[in-house]
Amino acid sequence: MAEIKVVHCGLGGIGLGIARIVAATEGLKIVGASDIAPDKAGQDLGTVMGLPKKLRVKVEPENRRLLKGARPDVAVLSTASSLKDVKPQVLELVAKGVNVVTTCEELSFPVPGHEKAAREIDAAARKKKARVLATGVNPGYAMDALALVLTAPCVKVERVAVTRVVDAGTRRVTLQRKVGAGLNLHQFRRAMTEGSVRHVGLPESAHMIAAALGWKIDKLEEMVEPAIAPRDLDTDYLRVAAGNVAGVKQTVRAWCGERLAISLDLHVYVGAENPRDQIVIDATPPVNMTIAGGLAGDEAAAALVVNAIPRLLSAPPGLVTMRDLPLLHAYNPAEARAIRKR
Amino acid sequence: MAEIKVVHCGLGGIGLGIARIVAATEGLKIVGASDIAPDKAGQDLGTVMGLPKKLRVKVEPENRRLLKGARPDVAVLSTASSLKDVKPQVLELVAKGVNVVTTCEELSFPVPGHEKAAREIDAAARKKKARVLATGVNPGYAMDALALVLTAPCVKVERVAVTRVVDAGTRRVTLQRKVGAGLNLHQFRRAMTEGSVRHVGLPESAHMIAAALGWKIDKLEEMVEPAIAPRDLDTDYLRVAAGNVAGVKQTVRAWCGERLAISLDLHVYVGAENPRDQIVIDATPPVNMTIAGGLAGDEAAAALVVNAIPRLLSAPPGLVTMRDLPLLHAYNPAEARAIRKR
Repeated sequence: MAEIKVVHCGLGGIGLGIARIVAATEGLKIVGASDIAPDKAGQDLGTVMGLPKKLRVKVEPENRRLLKGARPDVAVLSTASSLKDVKPQVLELVAKGVNVVTTCEELSFPVPGHEKAAREIDAAARKKKARVLATGVNPGYAMDALALVLTAPCVKVERVAVTRVVDAGTRRVTLQRKVGAGLNLHQFRRAMTEGSVRHVGLPESAHMIAAALGWKIDKLEEMVEPAIAPRDLDTDYLRVAAGNVAGVKQTVRAWCGERLAISLDLHVYVGAENPRDQIVIDATPPVNMTIAGGLAGDEAAAALVVNAIPRLLSAPPGLVTMRDLPLLHAYNPAEARAIRKR
Repeated sequence: MAEIKVVHCGLGGIGLGIARIVAATEGLKIVGASDIAPDKAGQDLGTVMGLPKKLRVKVEPENRRLLKGARPDVAVLSTASSLKDVKPQVLELVAKGVNVVTTCEELSFPVPGHEKAAREIDAAARKKKARVLATGVNPGYAMDALALVLTAPCVKVERVAVTRVVDAGTRRVTLQRKVGAGLNLHQFRRAMTEGSVRHVGLPESAHMIAAALGWKIDKLEEMVEPAIAPRDLDTDYLRVAAGNVAGVKQTVRAWCGERLAISLDLHVYVGAENPRDQIVIDATPPVNMTIAGGLAGDEAAAALVVNAIPRLLSAPPGLVTMRDLPLLHAYNPAEARAIRKR
């Protein structure tokens, strides 16, 4: 059986995590990789991944070079959160008929303002019979697709409320920095203005839920506020002094008419208590679900991307979302084999 | 827009619960009903459902009569748990090109011994371009499809363990009787031998999980034991004397080689503490999910059946399972409209 040929575009923390899983997965074969970072381009991918052996895959400085030889079946694109940055990369890949699974949060579901770009990607993908999916733990699963699955045993759904609490102190330093841990309030506000502390994806999750349930969002509010350290907090990487910023509390509220229909709360800060994923469906019957400890973000995101590959390759061409795919579960090598046989 | 025309075959507790939801759902229209019970056949369905008004749908004594007039789009078949009993009813419906969604537990996934009957139904359905799905809260969701969805963020899944605990004291009397509440041990053993206290569906759930994850079950053990009342227990309907049977504890263990791969525990008894649905995925990362209070069985099962209708009508012809369907969520009238337009 031939394997599904995968190229990895973007070898940051998540990109490398995905590549490590792909390298260990039956039925998938890494045939190329790219990253613009000068300390990665030109190296062997095995070296960049920290493996004891070389993979005989040279990291290219740009995606264009990945498409010169044998056509890959799927590109894992993990370069940026912004649709503006990622769109030309996706278009370049689908123009060559390559399927794309990306962690680009803004491509996970078309929200107002991104619909034109989404349509453009959809049309380009259909034209070349390629498929494009953006997924990850959030957006893509913990605060949208999983919430939708939990409405399956319900009628008369009035409200979907999701709370994700992550103790940033247990996570990698880049995440701690990303949520502003250790900054004072002045620095945090400046970082907010620059957009560097905001998690991207809550409106995408809200719109995915609303679209699936046939709800029209009339008003959507997004807020970001700092979580303040009640005492000095130390992580393996940094100290948060009492009164400084430990991380962020981010919320989305979406109304359908007068009804508060969707409520998303994402708390990511050092020292967050009772870390969890909680989903409450206000319906008949009601559902109150908690994942104790919460889904481990980076590991879960990387697994979701890999597990989605067989589903993506079986989907109709175009831009697909987690809402459209058949029941997604852990990787089954037999499903990958069945795809290659077609 | 024309509506999706539904007939209801079997008007027991679950069948009536489904009919009540269908009657209240935009885009669905009840065009027929049947039940063999002499106190139901011949009545107006609205009367049988306990509605204040008539539905101008006469309950027929047999399904054959439902197929004489306008062809229904889908039949809701809620008559029996046993595939042997339900198979001829399904075949009669699909022979007329009618899609079927049924609560027949043994049809939810083909287990060894039922594969031939499943293939027969599949072939008959394909021939007439009809679709057949068996679903419900259990099997169909709480102990299989939902567990699979929770493996989506995981790699290296070693084990899936599901525990469903239902306090039968809070449920309808038929369920209390079904699990043997109030019997003494001698009576319980006799009921066991007759097969009347066993919940049907745990092996189906185990096989669905295994098939989706590409696991081969080498050994499967199913056990049923009584839960003994530690003290006198009173429900709204009956008394369980201390030392008598309060209900059942039922387990399935499935091994792949030496590995205990799937572990399903269903506890349904009067006075069961901490009622819940708990799913533990032993994997990277691990997942430990709990639905507090547990899914309300009858309400959830009825909702699942109705919510599955748009997905079923969009599926390829044949026998489909919850494993095969796109992400299932609460009913969206727009999806039903889209189906009718095709």
